[in-house]
Amino acid sequence: MNDRNTGATAKTGASQARVTATYDIESAKGVTHAAAVLAGEQSTGTFLRLAGETDALRDRSAARIEAVEVTGRSDHPALPVREAGASYERGRVTISWPLGTFGTSLPVLMATIAGNLFELAELSAARLVDLTLPADFARAHPGPKFGAAGTRAAMGGHNGPLIGTIIKPSVGLSPAETAELVRSMAAAGIDFIKDDELQADGPDCPLADRVAQVMAVLNDHAERSGKRVLYAFNISGEIDEMRRNLDLLERHGAACAMVCLNAVGLPGLRVVRDHTAMPIHGHRAGWGLFSRSPQVGIDFPVMQKLWRLAGADHLHVNGLASKFTEADLSVARSARAVQAPACDGEAPAMTAMPVFSSGQTVWQLGPSRQVLGNDDFIFCAGGGLIGHPDRAGAGVTAMRQAAEAARDGITLEEKAKTAPELARAMAHFPKPEIDARVFAG
Amino acid sequence: MNDRNTGATAKTGASQARVTATYDIESAKGVTHAAAVLAGEQSTGTFLRLAGETDALRDRSAARIEAVEVTGRSDHPALPVREAGASYERGRVTISWPLGTFGTSLPVLMATIAGNLFELAELSAARLVDLTLPADFARAHPGPKFGAAGTRAAMGGHNGPLIGTIIKPSVGLSPAETAELVRSMAAAGIDFIKDDELQADGPDCPLADRVAQVMAVLNDHAERSGKRVLYAFNISGEIDEMRRNLDLLERHGAACAMVCLNAVGLPGLRVVRDHTAMPIHGHRAGWGLFSRSPQVGIDFPVMQKLWRLAGADHLHVNGLASKFTEADLSVARSARAVQAPACDGEAPAMTAMPVFSSGQTVWQLGPSRQVLGNDDFIFCAGGGLIGHPDRAGAGVTAMRQAAEAARDGITLEEKAKTAPELARAMAHFPKPEIDARVFAG
Repeated sequence: MNDRNTGATAKTGASQARVTATYDIESAKGVTHAAAVLAGEQSTGTFLRLAGETDALRDRSAARIEAVEVTGRSDHPALPVREAGASYERGRVTISWPLGTFGTSLPVLMATIAGNLFELAELSAARLVDLTLPADFARAHPGPKFGAAGTRAAMGGHNGPLIGTIIKPSVGLSPAETAELVRSMAAAGIDFIKDDELQADGPDCPLADRVAQVMAVLNDHAERSGKRVLYAFNISGEIDEMRRNLDLLERHGAACAMVCLNAVGLPGLRVVRDHTAMPIHGHRAGWGLFSRSPQVGIDFPVMQKLWRLAGADHLHVNGLASKFTEADLSVARSARAVQAPACDGEAPAMTAMPVFSSGQTVWQLGPSRQVLGNDDFIFCAGGGLIGHPDRAGAGVTAMRQAAEAARDGITLEEKAKTAPELARAMAHFPKPEIDARVFAG
Repeated sequence: MNDRNTGATAKTGASQARVTATYDIESAKGVTHAAAVLAGEQSTGTFLRLAGETDALRDRSAARIEAVEVTGRSDHPALPVREAGASYERGRVTISWPLGTFGTSLPVLMATIAGNLFELAELSAARLVDLTLPADFARAHPGPKFGAAGTRAAMGGHNGPLIGTIIKPSVGLSPAETAELVRSMAAAGIDFIKDDELQADGPDCPLADRVAQVMAVLNDHAERSGKRVLYAFNISGEIDEMRRNLDLLERHGAACAMVCLNAVGLPGLRVVRDHTAMPIHGHRAGWGLFSRSPQVGIDFPVMQKLWRLAGADHLHVNGLASKFTEADLSVARSARAVQAPACDGEAPAMTAMPVFSSGQTVWQLGPSRQVLGNDDFIFCAGGGLIGHPDRAGAGVTAMRQAAEAARDGITLEEKAKTAPELARAMAHFPKPEIDARVFAG
């Protein structure tokens, strides 16, 4: 055993440290029993104790139950379940794994902490709500290449939150039509523009044409104004295709690449990270599959750690009072998580920029900043910018005025007295209701 | 427009055909309204109708509602939802998309049919239950390189279902201990062995050592017996790492590679498919995230089409009366789907082999075969083989006797009269209850 451990340490830097995950579960058999089943399924277990499964092997390789907390009981199962009972106990269980099995591999970590367990017949609910990663992961994975500072540098320097927009209609515009929209938004003073996640390299708007035409506009704009607008081109595709797309972007002087995280997978993201010379804008399309049911899934603060380890520089978190169903408290928790350490003892910090979007206007900018306590975020709006009664230029100005107010700690109403564009926006866009509890934590 | 369309067709072979997806949804606004929101969000829409969104653009690029069927109404939402109402209408809606936007890209198809829609505030349930792909996808994607026929060829020829097992304990065995287990299972006459999804290339059981020691055993066994046992090594990892792992496998004469589909992503799977000279064993660890809640998710018959297009040769479908919570009807539907066409007008057929596993004994083999009507499947058992009272050799023999009975259309009880190993297994393993409806269709 010593030999193997020594060899292991030499090979991957695996330590005695453990990965720890917390689940919100429910079981007719009780959460203590269910925790044992879960730990067994996700490490040394099978449905029979086998001859090869010695105590020494268990000690070395088994998952360990670190904590069990009962939180409630119900007379019906939260999810349809094969193993029914008279009542169902709810609770939080914390499980830990030694690194000896999977080292610091993110795909195998996923199969371990978020694998077969969600299908266990003993569980009528299973949600992964917390994850602690030892410093080994920070040493093994390079993390975001750019983060907020690198993103600002890619723009040629920038202060304050990035005011961004999304090309709409999402699909259907030609490359020339897209470039025309970009021209008008650059003239309006925008910092950041992104493709829609539905728009990548389809026949009606090929990426090569779109990059050529958009970057002609933005390179020209940069030359005349000194300001580099970031355009996040959606390069999602097959692995070698994404590498070629990045080369294409670089040839045209593009400064941001977007990927759909769930569509390209963690290894796909890592390839892009290693190949890219520009920040990666991480879009989480499909995230509802993991988050929508309170009874099964993964909390975003858990998943975003893996995406940052694999190299995402920007991460979507929805927006406060958005058109999506996510509660404001969840949005705020996600946004803070993106700026918190991903691993124990991480240095330098692997932080990414949270991206707020969907139904955003001047009303949500200040609250979004207040949630974070800093300007290192991207704030995207569509109708909230170009729907400004005095058009997009005034829309961008109004957003910056809202950002200044937030930075200076004055109310929008106070700021509006000397900021006519903001005043017009406030009169035009209805004030949404934001859950005040987002500012508590 | 004609120019663009012509160019597009030349580039990717996009046709006038459409992708069609069906969702089971619920909405306080009614399913007809919700269908329009869904189609808008997933194509040309935003929350304001913009100047650029002309009727011509809509006609060309918008998603189309093909069918709406109301199926029920409830006074409470199936999932927590931002847009509440007095009651919630349930129904099935079918949406179609032109190929002009995404061509035949699988990652962008995913972002389209399974993207932001799951988070819409108008939906209190959203599950993707059906998908029809035009022949363009079959032309653009090579599909499984091996399938059932290629898998049998990789074994040097084989008749009947493949009787398989999984190395257990899942983790904790050294390469030498693993090889010893493999030696005993090969001697017992097994056809197929797989790594656990938790075991890949960790410090305690490095892949290179495991491959070397396991293949020394299996190559020796093949030389002496003429029989090639397939061992599916779990090569899941980063992209270039998986390519290197495949090269390693090939150098040692290995004949099967396993990947965790959700952990490596569709583009990762495709890389493995393009690089490999052996069948790909597709493990769906984490599938519960997509399937466990009836209110949100993706039906397996939908998702497996994409995995087959990207190249999976074998696909896990759980087992009848397994230790997992999935209902037998769902297992049967999944297994049949893996052998059905993935696209319209597909030729040759891109079928894969369904893999049954988890808590399987002689009792489930016949019913599994009956569900499919053929022998092109893999039947994995752990305790159900080595737990045979006369040990693993008798366990494998009993499984083959059960397969013969199924093929010949005689009962297990009848077969057991002349098959002592089967008789002993039947006496030892309790007969599980299988939902008889699995045989209906």
